[in-house]
Amino acid sequence: MMQDREGRMLAIGFDADDTLWHNERLYALTQGKFRELLAPYGDAAWIDQQLYATETRNLAHFGYGIKGFTLSMIETAIELTGGRIGGREIGQIVEWGRSMLVSPVELLPGVEEVVATLAQEYALLLITKGDLFDQESKLARSGLGGNFQHVEIVRDKDEAVYAAILAKHKIPPSDFLMVGNSIRSDILPVLKLGARAAHIPYAITWQHETAALPETALDGYFQLEAMDALPALVAQL
Amino acid sequence: MMQDREGRMLAIGFDADDTLWHNERLYALTQGKFRELLAPYGDAAWIDQQLYATETRNLAHFGYGIKGFTLSMIETAIELTGGRIGGREIGQIVEWGRSMLVSPVELLPGVEEVVATLAQEYALLLITKGDLFDQESKLARSGLGGNFQHVEIVRDKDEAVYAAILAKHKIPPSDFLMVGNSIRSDILPVLKLGARAAHIPYAITWQHETAALPETALDGYFQLEAMDALPALVAQL
Repeated sequence: MMQDREGRMLAIGFDADDTLWHNERLYALTQGKFRELLAPYGDAAWIDQQLYATETRNLAHFGYGIKGFTLSMIETAIELTGGRIGGREIGQIVEWGRSMLVSPVELLPGVEEVVATLAQEYALLLITKGDLFDQESKLARSGLGGNFQHVEIVRDKDEAVYAAILAKHKIPPSDFLMVGNSIRSDILPVLKLGARAAHIPYAITWQHETAALPETALDGYFQLEAMDALPALVAQL
Repeated sequence: MMQDREGRMLAIGFDADDTLWHNERLYALTQGKFRELLAPYGDAAWIDQQLYATETRNLAHFGYGIKGFTLSMIETAIELTGGRIGGREIGQIVEWGRSMLVSPVELLPGVEEVVATLAQEYALLLITKGDLFDQESKLARSGLGGNFQHVEIVRDKDEAVYAAILAKHKIPPSDFLMVGNSIRSDILPVLKLGARAAHIPYAITWQHETAALPETALDGYFQLEAMDALPALVAQL
């Protein structure tokens, strides 16, 4: 833990996908192609619904990430077409998966500057769930790696996982701020621990990550429009 | 780091797949079914060769693990049949992948006792590569988790990765012994760091993991028949 100029201790955790860089739009784009491929068999809403059902069912086995998404698309295509989908079409789906895995990492506006600035005064952690291989590769391609004291790639982000990360790095919850786009994964479990959390919404939220905030006021909860509002929040904490 | 009864410091790293529990035979079993499925299109040796070529090509994108293996089987099936493979057959391959992911974790002989005994005197680390989700799930199902002070799931096991792990936990290479079945991943990079390594071969080695030992004698290299020979080695180090 570092002390800032005013002697305060603060560690800041960042989510990665859709907080530091674009991610969900890549899934949305691929899902658009998937809809087109299956258009002869059903309408878009129905295809989306079936794919989401397959993904949800497979989460317990596949976890998060592009490989699991690709397998879920393949499975859904076979189910929806009663097995009539051909090998070539499925080959296309595999190819979409591979091209998602190598698609460029595009940082969100303000991220590069804000992360570099905060790294000078605070201990920064990257806390992301998903596929280890894919997340490490994206972090490497993002060029942001050097700013983070610790990188934690975890299978899911719930209260117990956050508690274990904070304990491991000896960070009291009162000295921790989490920043992310998912109410479900980045905000609610962190607030339950007594830490603070800043929500920066992304344009698209995967259905699985949506969650409602309680209607009562939440201690330690902050809503920001975009990443460049973060330094001002941190300065006033 | 702990000191043992004689005041020595020693940290012992364990590989997981095919060192603590059976793994490769599950792949071999599935690959057998894959060969049968594609038998109308080519002979077994040719199918194996094509699958291995696809896996190798995909490693840089998919990493290690069952999901990547499943996608590689699908891709190979489509290629080998010129796209003639049907949706139902591909659905079977997806199903094999899912059933691999939930198949029981079977410990190798002696592992449970040896790991529990050594954990009383030494700091044990689990150092495994592969899919985060799958490896965490296997560790949980193995019942061995409580014996390890640290669990490191990494994207690959080379000299730099081992050096980073030892540095993070402040373990000098001279106080470290790695135990595993892969010459390529568990032995050679560890010896290069000046640490020690004990090789316990598994019945089957995936082609990708084979590597020859140098012909000259290697400092710090030990070959063991099975896990239950480990405590005696540790005691004489």
